[in-house]
Amino acid sequence: MKLRRIAAKCVDLRQERPTAYVRLTEIKELPRNPAHHGTMLEQSLLLTDLYELSMLEAYAAHGMAETAVFELFVRNLPPGRGFLMAAGLEQAVEFLEAMRFTPDELAWLLASGMFSSGFLDGLKDLRFTGDVDALPEGTVFFPNEPVLRVTAPLPQAQLVETRLLNLVHFQTVIASKAARMVLAAPGKQLVDFGLRRAHGAEAGLLAARASYLAGFSSTATVLASRDFGIPVVGTMAHSFVQAHDDEATAFERFARVRPKALTLLIDTYDTERGAAIVAGLAPRLAAQGITIGAVRLDSGDLASHAHAVRAILDVAGLQAIRIFASGGLDEHSLLALCRGGAPIDGFGVGTSLTTSADAPALDCAYKLQEYAGRPRRKRSEGKATWPGRKQVYRRYTAHGTIAADVVALLDEATDGEALLQPAMRDGKRVPGFPGLMEARIRAAGALAQLPDTLRRLEPADVPVEISRGIRQLAAQADRAATPDHAL
Amino acid sequence: MKLRRIAAKCVDLRQERPTAYVRLTEIKELPRNPAHHGTMLEQSLLLTDLYELSMLEAYAAHGMAETAVFELFVRNLPPGRGFLMAAGLEQAVEFLEAMRFTPDELAWLLASGMFSSGFLDGLKDLRFTGDVDALPEGTVFFPNEPVLRVTAPLPQAQLVETRLLNLVHFQTVIASKAARMVLAAPGKQLVDFGLRRAHGAEAGLLAARASYLAGFSSTATVLASRDFGIPVVGTMAHSFVQAHDDEATAFERFARVRPKALTLLIDTYDTERGAAIVAGLAPRLAAQGITIGAVRLDSGDLASHAHAVRAILDVAGLQAIRIFASGGLDEHSLLALCRGGAPIDGFGVGTSLTTSADAPALDCAYKLQEYAGRPRRKRSEGKATWPGRKQVYRRYTAHGTIAADVVALLDEATDGEALLQPAMRDGKRVPGFPGLMEARIRAAGALAQLPDTLRRLEPADVPVEISRGIRQLAAQADRAATPDHAL
Repeated sequence: MKLRRIAAKCVDLRQERPTAYVRLTEIKELPRNPAHHGTMLEQSLLLTDLYELSMLEAYAAHGMAETAVFELFVRNLPPGRGFLMAAGLEQAVEFLEAMRFTPDELAWLLASGMFSSGFLDGLKDLRFTGDVDALPEGTVFFPNEPVLRVTAPLPQAQLVETRLLNLVHFQTVIASKAARMVLAAPGKQLVDFGLRRAHGAEAGLLAARASYLAGFSSTATVLASRDFGIPVVGTMAHSFVQAHDDEATAFERFARVRPKALTLLIDTYDTERGAAIVAGLAPRLAAQGITIGAVRLDSGDLASHAHAVRAILDVAGLQAIRIFASGGLDEHSLLALCRGGAPIDGFGVGTSLTTSADAPALDCAYKLQEYAGRPRRKRSEGKATWPGRKQVYRRYTAHGTIAADVVALLDEATDGEALLQPAMRDGKRVPGFPGLMEARIRAAGALAQLPDTLRRLEPADVPVEISRGIRQLAAQADRAATPDHAL
Repeated sequence: MKLRRIAAKCVDLRQERPTAYVRLTEIKELPRNPAHHGTMLEQSLLLTDLYELSMLEAYAAHGMAETAVFELFVRNLPPGRGFLMAAGLEQAVEFLEAMRFTPDELAWLLASGMFSSGFLDGLKDLRFTGDVDALPEGTVFFPNEPVLRVTAPLPQAQLVETRLLNLVHFQTVIASKAARMVLAAPGKQLVDFGLRRAHGAEAGLLAARASYLAGFSSTATVLASRDFGIPVVGTMAHSFVQAHDDEATAFERFARVRPKALTLLIDTYDTERGAAIVAGLAPRLAAQGITIGAVRLDSGDLASHAHAVRAILDVAGLQAIRIFASGGLDEHSLLALCRGGAPIDGFGVGTSLTTSADAPALDCAYKLQEYAGRPRRKRSEGKATWPGRKQVYRRYTAHGTIAADVVALLDEATDGEALLQPAMRDGKRVPGFPGLMEARIRAAGALAQLPDTLRRLEPADVPVEISRGIRQLAAQADRAATPDHAL
């Protein structure tokens, strides 16, 4: 099946390139958790900008319901970034499939006095009946490339703008950030530790999803495991150690409840002293059938502590205890630790991941490109858009890495792999719509296809060409939108 | 009552200082929307880090349920920031009041195989029965000052760590950012436009709340109006203009559905041409009883367009039409536009507000300060904490502005206004717990109390003193945590 095909492709890429990022064992190893529940994100259609509803009222008043084509794209890369990774499509599709106003919501809108009752009556039966074409989650993309295209009657396509952007933007932000960390720390276990500083509940959940998609191993967020089937891991907090009168007692008590997946946090008072306590404790725990899996460092110079701790553990014959590090990490510190050969086996990454601290937002937009069969174009200064229905064509080098992309009109003959794929038809997701595991495998393949110039933390630009057809259509749209009498 | 008392205080401050930020009319003018619903945030106790549950199992195994005192605080200010504004307490209290595991959640945890059934059985009856003391929302604060103190049996106080941080951190981030914008644009209407690029649904909703708390006038997010009673406003999108064959028709159609609160977006093709169309349209609309309230600029050099548009409108006798601007604004561009005298009456602020783009996270922590009657202290490098139950005492200058703060032990005699107030007792919020409107008024008063050195976008440091009592207690805690036999 499709999953297997992508997995096989991923294996091929691994053979060619030693730096592919999903370990083969992980592909088979689906999470051992009980069946996940699916997401329960906010679905209210009132989670929108007021202007969407105002515009719908005007469209309704003038019977404007012909087919509109909107495209979602990113105008520019954040400084220092070389690529983005598409994510959030599954939640966008879930939102569109479930979209409807509840009687309560309509009653509230009526009571607000902002809308006529005739218009609100008409909203009762509003559903999304359109098509969506999109980059599958896990696809690497560049500025000015449509990430998602909505083709639907104008009111439907308009109304969904705010929440579609909200859903696709955020996970794309996080997957793009997480991908950089995966590139910076090849072969290391990366764990999402970011819920506490994520921007609310949904951000924490979706950051766990998007980072797993991009190649993280697991998350600390329990609900993300239940809802998305992501492996969940955890260690212990300083407060646990502090609540005991001494560290050894704290470690021993924690070990008894985590005999199989035991990580001890050793920096509450003094990291090397903590390691010595672990070394002393290990034989005693081993006698009780408890194996210490790892120790965690969370402060100070992580590289020098890791070397010291590794030496203490090795001298005690505890080579099997892994070292796990956390504390203010980002892709730059991950790269420095890995390049410097710090003996660290895995990393917990929090704030910089779940807030994408260097670039917490992308300059993305959802713009009308065609209405009632005519191309449309915005020409605002510095924010002009390319009109028409578009596709992205990707060309590869002989080594299988990305060479260049061309953005062209859908009906313009162009070489290369067409990246936008059908996601919904007539308001329903297409059969075989890829889930999170498939997106994760695709992401691993996509990172393996990055040219060396884009793997670097300070990358070069990738050429994205705008086709001749699009440029001609833009000129034509400009002429139509600037009738002589207005000049 | 309390609200009136704070309002009166705010009036006094206004008389002293002309730059107070809540207009008096707004204090009386509660939102005209129908009764708001209250929030429906994610309340699942699985929205937590796995390690909280692991630690609870270890506490349960060893009967560790004595009183713990945790404090939430921020270690450092982000670069370029002079103060923070407390927000999110109301949502934190709602979370604690509602806190319980559902049978479904416990069944999922059991099926995960990570916990013993005996331990999970014990979680059935877990409720929050403790006390919370906190800075009231809208209070200005500085690093190392407790924002919130939880006093509760250890398992309860431990379990709530992740979500408490998640809720208090995010709104504090946003209120602190919004306050800078309020200071940069005194007297201007500021509107939250940020939902589409907020980090998910909850971030969008809570950013609307936190920015309103800090002095914004309104939001574009409809659900935030329903849930929190925040005034909601909206204009129109470029797609509305593009969907029509000419701009004048688009404006006229939109005007008919928004005859009372009409803002026209005039930069889709050419800003000054858009203004000329508005000038031509205004008399025709006036004849139909429709008044154009404002025009919106969203691209290009906003100051020069605003001057040009103001001139076009004024020449046409349309002095009453206000100019509203949006598009990539932050506190620095607001300050530049306001200082430069751009004729702009209000601003829509999106991404930089709802992601707090320059500082999307704070270095905050929730740390154990006392357990079973003994002070506790973490000594990790660069992350040491001050032990004991603390209070913040604020001293004022003769002009009523903040002079300095002292962080002292709760029982240490100290001059100044005690800032932490009771928020919950025995698991219930205290009578008179302040709501959003009260917090908004407090915030306006707090901004009025800022010394000039802190009003600047590049502020000076405020002295926060750590009391002698705390330092002595820290030394004592260190001695206790470093028993001779371990050295």
